[in-house]
Amino acid sequence: MPSLQFLPQPLTAAIVGCPFSGGQRRTGVDQGPIRLVEAGLVEQLKGLGWNVVFDGHHQFEEYNNLDDAPIGIMKNPRTVSQVNRSVAGVVMNHAKNGMLPVTLGGDHSLAMGTISGSLAVHPDACVIWIDAHADINTIETTDSGNMHGMPLSFLLGIGDKIQEFDWIKPVLKPERLVYIGLRDLDAGEKRLLREHNIKAFSMHEVDKYGIGKVVEMALDYVNPKRDLPIHLSFDVDALDPSVAPSTGTPVRGGLTFREGHYICEAIHETGLLVSLDLMEVNPSLAEAADADKTVAVGCSLVRAALGETLL
Amino acid sequence: MPSLQFLPQPLTAAIVGCPFSGGQRRTGVDQGPIRLVEAGLVEQLKGLGWNVVFDGHHQFEEYNNLDDAPIGIMKNPRTVSQVNRSVAGVVMNHAKNGMLPVTLGGDHSLAMGTISGSLAVHPDACVIWIDAHADINTIETTDSGNMHGMPLSFLLGIGDKIQEFDWIKPVLKPERLVYIGLRDLDAGEKRLLREHNIKAFSMHEVDKYGIGKVVEMALDYVNPKRDLPIHLSFDVDALDPSVAPSTGTPVRGGLTFREGHYICEAIHETGLLVSLDLMEVNPSLAEAADADKTVAVGCSLVRAALGETLL
Amino acid sequence: MPSLQFLPQPLTAAIVGCPFSGGQRRTGVDQGPIRLVEAGLVEQLKGLGWNVVFDGHHQFEEYNNLDDAPIGIMKNPRTVSQVNRSVAGVVMNHAKNGMLPVTLGGDHSLAMGTISGSLAVHPDACVIWIDAHADINTIETTDSGNMHGMPLSFLLGIGDKIQEFDWIKPVLKPERLVYIGLRDLDAGEKRLLREHNIKAFSMHEVDKYGIGKVVEMALDYVNPKRDLPIHLSFDVDALDPSVAPSTGTPVRGGLTFREGHYICEAIHETGLLVSLDLMEVNPSLAEAADADKTVAVGCSLVRAALGETLL
Ligand SMILES: [Mn+2]
Ligand SMILES: [Mn+2]
Ligand SMILES: [Mn+2]
Ligand SMILES: [Mn+2]
Ligand SMILES: [Mn+2]
Ligand SMILES: [Mn+2]
Repeated sequence: MPSLQFLPQPLTAAIVGCPFSGGQRRTGVDQGPIRLVEAGLVEQLKGLGWNVVFDGHHQFEEYNNLDDAPIGIMKNPRTVSQVNRSVAGVVMNHAKNGMLPVTLGGDHSLAMGTISGSLAVHPDACVIWIDAHADINTIETTDSGNMHGMPLSFLLGIGDKIQEFDWIKPVLKPERLVYIGLRDLDAGEKRLLREHNIKAFSMHEVDKYGIGKVVEMALDYVNPKRDLPIHLSFDVDALDPSVAPSTGTPVRGGLTFREGHYICEAIHETGLLVSLDLMEVNPSLAEAADADKTVAVGCSLVRAALGETLL
Repeated sequence: MPSLQFLPQPLTAAIVGCPFSGGQRRTGVDQGPIRLVEAGLVEQLKGLGWNVVFDGHHQFEEYNNLDDAPIGIMKNPRTVSQVNRSVAGVVMNHAKNGMLPVTLGGDHSLAMGTISGSLAVHPDACVIWIDAHADINTIETTDSGNMHGMPLSFLLGIGDKIQEFDWIKPVLKPERLVYIGLRDLDAGEKRLLREHNIKAFSMHEVDKYGIGKVVEMALDYVNPKRDLPIHLSFDVDALDPSVAPSTGTPVRGGLTFREGHYICEAIHETGLLVSLDLMEVNPSLAEAADADKTVAVGCSLVRAALGETLL
Repeated sequence: MPSLQFLPQPLTAAIVGCPFSGGQRRTGVDQGPIRLVEAGLVEQLKGLGWNVVFDGHHQFEEYNNLDDAPIGIMKNPRTVSQVNRSVAGVVMNHAKNGMLPVTLGGDHSLAMGTISGSLAVHPDACVIWIDAHADINTIETTDSGNMHGMPLSFLLGIGDKIQEFDWIKPVLKPERLVYIGLRDLDAGEKRLLREHNIKAFSMHEVDKYGIGKVVEMALDYVNPKRDLPIHLSFDVDALDPSVAPSTGTPVRGGLTFREGHYICEAIHETGLLVSLDLMEVNPSLAEAADADKTVAVGCSLVRAALGETLL
């Protein structure tokens, strides 16, 4: 039976299913949470000893018909903002009630909501961001205008302020953020990481030190006394495309199946997890077997983060 | 020309081909030893400088028509027992004669025989067990009743005694056993490992420390002065299914091709090997190319354990 | 903008395209450089901030009709010799002019020319040879007579002298050579490595220490003060066939995609690179998708060696 330092017993996970794809252009990522739940995630977590609360996926219907002209080149800005404001409230309430929110995306713009929500309850929490991408573009640096590449700039308070997003407080300090798995950054993003002195372990460091040492160094940086709550935001595209092919922006040279699971296992072992995102599973981007494989990996990453061990 | 501390020169390997599948339910694993030999294993070992004794595969015909009702839910208990008693004798005789038995399975229940046989001659030998599974279920804990998941409980003397197996002596002390590669254990097996304080390096530790350090730690534990004989029992399902697809119980997240070979190379380098099992190659479970690949990997693992080096 | 210690600013790369296949028997490796350039390599390097000189591939037409009977069992010896003599001159001139020669093979016999050329200008340069093979056979040890398995014996001055190659000076001292990635050596080659005390990190060492440590140890050996120029000779067959399938002599158990790139990144980080070979891309040996994959990997290895970073 797992136990976590910031959560009351019996441990309860709240599944926050977010079938939302408005932060990028490829359809199908909204089916990610539906497929993860259909694959048995709720029962699997119960099998690990968790209570699980799940009342169906969020529909976000009220945001479907917003007048949503681009702001600069940002696509769907008002929809992304309002959906995330809603998600932030849901995640905050679960966290307030002593539950561990497990947010299933949907695209990674949803982290605007999840991190706003979990840091409202755990203001000292650090964020461990597992991704091929840095997702830190601002309205000035984005080339694509896809907001799933931008959530961290809002949470860090970097870049021009945009009125439609003024509900997002800059709750995340750069020294409370660490990346693992990066390998495809825009030039503007590389500059932002340097300017704001943000710590990142790219695949180069994973090769250089091994995943065991990298996770240790990442925790030493962002949580040196191992006493801060942890929000883990896991984009499945951090994994190599051979492991998780069914995702919107795959990049070669990623984490192996085991490296991805090791990260989740090691973070669970800290006993400090308070919130989890599992993002960018898009079951419509690959053949059925590869989509199934990606969904299965998504479920097993969540299980590992919530305490499944090999021994 | 390899040299090994406990074996006289010139080195001689005795191939013990065991086309036996009675320890589990999938047909075809009995073809494993036949295919390994057809692939040229005997000549390959001769090419490494070994004398090789091979008089054909064992047929176990006398055990085909045993009255073999389940005991509890254990399947084929009398057949498994009698075949292994026979294998134990063969392995013991080869070891007594200064040869290195290379037992080709067949399913992993055969380790009841191989380890009984080699520890009869080398009572201080330690056992290094490479497997996705712990194969330590007892009649109380087994869910499936498949005896290839149970050999270590008999060898360790754990669990209820069963009269049909009373020829097996508890020759293996828990501190002389170490696992590498585990990733799929039953709850009862996890409990047995803890209760009996058995050392295991799961894939989590392989990720955390790297295979080089894991093999060193495993040897430091089980053979701290590097002076005890080693029985290596290698289940090909320890390898990732992408490397060895043709096996009965594949599990994702396994050893890479190189990690598997590294283990064999490093154990050979100790100079302490006295007995080797290569188990669970089942050439009928995959397409021809994948079966060939698995057979080829089986042969190259044996060669690595018997002294083939890259340089 | 990358900077390198032995090269003047602005950095200039000279692409030496060598569509030559005479050092081995499989057609198609002559298409390697053509496909690498078609894939956009020139523009990619410009995008990294390099000036790039490329005046078309060398045609070597004057060597097409040489009377070229075998010498011993060496195939095409006069053609291989004369083509390499020509390549040596080209590479030497580029290096003299302060440019970094990027030689695109073609087969690895071309290293006779590239290393002769770069060491004529940088006589203290060390050679880092990334390969599944040792390519060090002499006329006495070669089984195949394929000269792409022999270039290092000529450069080291090992083996019987052959008049047709007397333009090659033994410019490379054994202590200035180090291998990474070896896993398929002839018996004669293993002996030569021992006799001449040549340092090699096989895949066994990559497994044992991890690629980060292996590159550090290789540099510590061959370039202990980090003050010598580096010639990097990269045979794509060093990579695992799953990563670079389209090559003439693939061998299982090779470098991962990331390990290959890590080597190039780490050598670039030394600031000491003066010359680069990318060899043995043969786009006709695999299906179109695998050939494209191999070509893409070839380009990204070159980019990594020339300063592309993940962050
Ligand atoms: Mn992301
Ligand atoms: Mn991503
Ligand atoms: Mn087994
Ligand atoms: Mn097994
Ligand atoms: Mn080569
Ligand atoms: Mn090669």
